[in-house]
Amino acid sequence: MVDFNDNSHRRYNILTGEWVLVSPHRTKRPWQGKEEDVVVEERPSYDPSCYLCPGNERAGGHTNENYKEPWSFVNDFAALKNDVPQAKFKSGLLKAESESGICKVVCFSPDHSLTLPVMEVSEIEKVIALWQHEFRELGKKPDINQVQIFENKGATMGCSNPHPHGQIWAQRTIPQEVSKKNKQLREYWNNNKSSLLGDYINEELELKERLIVDTEFFVALVPYWAVWPYEVMISPKKQHRTILTLSAEERLDYAKIIKAVTIKYDNLFKISFPYSSGIHQAPTDGQDWDSWHFHMSFYPPLLRSATVKKFMVGYEMFATPQRDITAEMAAKTLRNLADEHYTKK
Amino acid sequence: MVDFNDNSHRRYNILTGEWVLVSPHRTKRPWQGKEEDVVVEERPSYDPSCYLCPGNERAGGHTNENYKEPWSFVNDFAALKNDVPQAKFKSGLLKAESESGICKVVCFSPDHSLTLPVMEVSEIEKVIALWQHEFRELGKKPDINQVQIFENKGATMGCSNPHPHGQIWAQRTIPQEVSKKNKQLREYWNNNKSSLLGDYINEELELKERLIVDTEFFVALVPYWAVWPYEVMISPKKQHRTILTLSAEERLDYAKIIKAVTIKYDNLFKISFPYSSGIHQAPTDGQDWDSWHFHMSFYPPLLRSATVKKFMVGYEMFATPQRDITAEMAAKTLRNLADEHYTKK
Ligand SMILES: O=P(O)(O)O[C@H]1O[C@H](CO)[C@@H](O)[C@H](O)[C@H]1O
Ligand SMILES: O=P(O)(O)O[C@H]1O[C@H](CO)[C@@H](O)[C@H](O)[C@H]1O
Repeated sequence: MVDFNDNSHRRYNILTGEWVLVSPHRTKRPWQGKEEDVVVEERPSYDPSCYLCPGNERAGGHTNENYKEPWSFVNDFAALKNDVPQAKFKSGLLKAESESGICKVVCFSPDHSLTLPVMEVSEIEKVIALWQHEFRELGKKPDINQVQIFENKGATMGCSNPHPHGQIWAQRTIPQEVSKKNKQLREYWNNNKSSLLGDYINEELELKERLIVDTEFFVALVPYWAVWPYEVMISPKKQHRTILTLSAEERLDYAKIIKAVTIKYDNLFKISFPYSSGIHQAPTDGQDWDSWHFHMSFYPPLLRSATVKKFMVGYEMFATPQRDITAEMAAKTLRNLADEHYTKK
Repeated sequence: MVDFNDNSHRRYNILTGEWVLVSPHRTKRPWQGKEEDVVVEERPSYDPSCYLCPGNERAGGHTNENYKEPWSFVNDFAALKNDVPQAKFKSGLLKAESESGICKVVCFSPDHSLTLPVMEVSEIEKVIALWQHEFRELGKKPDINQVQIFENKGATMGCSNPHPHGQIWAQRTIPQEVSKKNKQLREYWNNNKSSLLGDYINEELELKERLIVDTEFFVALVPYWAVWPYEVMISPKKQHRTILTLSAEERLDYAKIIKAVTIKYDNLFKISFPYSSGIHQAPTDGQDWDSWHFHMSFYPPLLRSATVKKFMVGYEMFATPQRDITAEMAAKTLRNLADEHYTKK
């Protein structure tokens, strides 16, 4: 019997149909490369030069509302605009088509100094409520078929402003990553008449070795096929196609588990942990997406410490993603971390 | 008629079957985020502490040969090993299988101070000759079905040692990125009995707007579907499945165009330009790969300057790659740069 804890192997991602290369024996490799800066900053609750703080002026010349709760607005430098006429271009082997959409910025809090792990659960609940509102309203529009909610946290993740905020990019076509999941989820649904992710979660709840946090309605785990060293997925145990059908109790639980996971993240290296997170949900194209089961994933870049990250470069770009520590090792580390934020002690 | 130079659109990658979102209007966005360090270092030709310099000791306790020409050895911390017994694991929705292979390091030169753009064409030719040798020998092994040659250049690209070197990871299974191309190339070949990439190159040679360098046997261009801001592809005009069938003249030409492209890269921001490059070639699995047409791609992370890179984060991770400057804008910029290295003036 081959020991996968000590031998290179590939694992299959049931949600995308792709593989990840795992090289557990490689954790011994010394690191002499680039180290990230550790920026430990005390931020004020209000920063007059921040373009996301309430009442301040933004680059586009707009002025922010004097918001007291989570607040959203249309991105001044949107990658997607909704006034693009539909057109297709084809000439020989060149193929393109216009893309339209709406990009929004979601401020999580008026308080410049906060991040999700140090916000109150009730405040995170309000963020979820705003996500629900935006998802509902954007998804209703006839030319919006996919609504992508995400957060880039930390300078390492291309985030240009530390004010707690995320983004929503909603668009006409179904993007690649979602298409892959559409296919896998639907195929399983058609064959088994049950949720692929739901069945997977049940399996993980029994095995326990990749669990991080297990609440009444939600679970946080390191997926078996995780790519990023400390990748985590949060998902409702019961099948919900989107965040819109959560009950009040479930939404509260969702807020709690987001706080719990991000606290563990910060505690890992005792810094404000960088990541990109995103919620994958059923498309809003009016098609039958019975098979969908929403989930929120966190892709954090750090590998060994606050300063050494995992580089997804050469081999990963040209061949396939590769990781050193196994999902089980990562899960164990995260699970054993304190539930209270390190700054609160 | 919609102007794709000014409106968001998606472009189709004929080689992978995937799409990239292009947002040309977004180039006006101000940047207030993370800036990379510019490390301008004068390196000595020999560094006693470098584990890749001739005669030095490596981390694993091995001693480097006193090599005078490009030289390769097996990676001391290989992600892939060839002594892994084949095994498959399946339990419920968990699926894995062992993966075996060989990882090698290819030192481009004994001279610690060099990089490809400042090496002589004849020296680059010797690097290509070593790639050919490795590709041939590794590819011959019965359990090696894919040989990935690549280079991570610069600290930003996870390169932990500035000594000029690349890597080769050769393995049993066909990795994801290559599988996508296998499918697209073969489909086109079956339908048209000609090389998809060859036909595309002919189209670009006529259009000219995405060309960077055009030599007798090779062309360097920014592909229509480029993802990275200054992505470049080098490919032979005539169909070669792998680098093994190049004539002596063609190999010389290949060396010349690698030098020409990397010089332009360095001249762009007057720094040693970081990138990951990789050569995609026909698998070595003994199957019929008549449809293959080898090409070398460069994925450089920098966007606006030596310090501002493009972050492939939130939206890119959860949805689809996105770029701001168009392939045509990038090609024009690169094409117009001097052919001589900026340090040589
Ligand atoms: O092998 P190296 O140079 O130590 O490591 C570098 O290249 C590898 C292959 O692209 C990546 O997996 C690593 O993340 C990167 O740091
Ligand atoms: O929109 P921002 O925060 O200016 O930009 C950031 O997030 C975007 C969406 O993930 C990325 O396309 C950018 O590369 C990144 O810098």
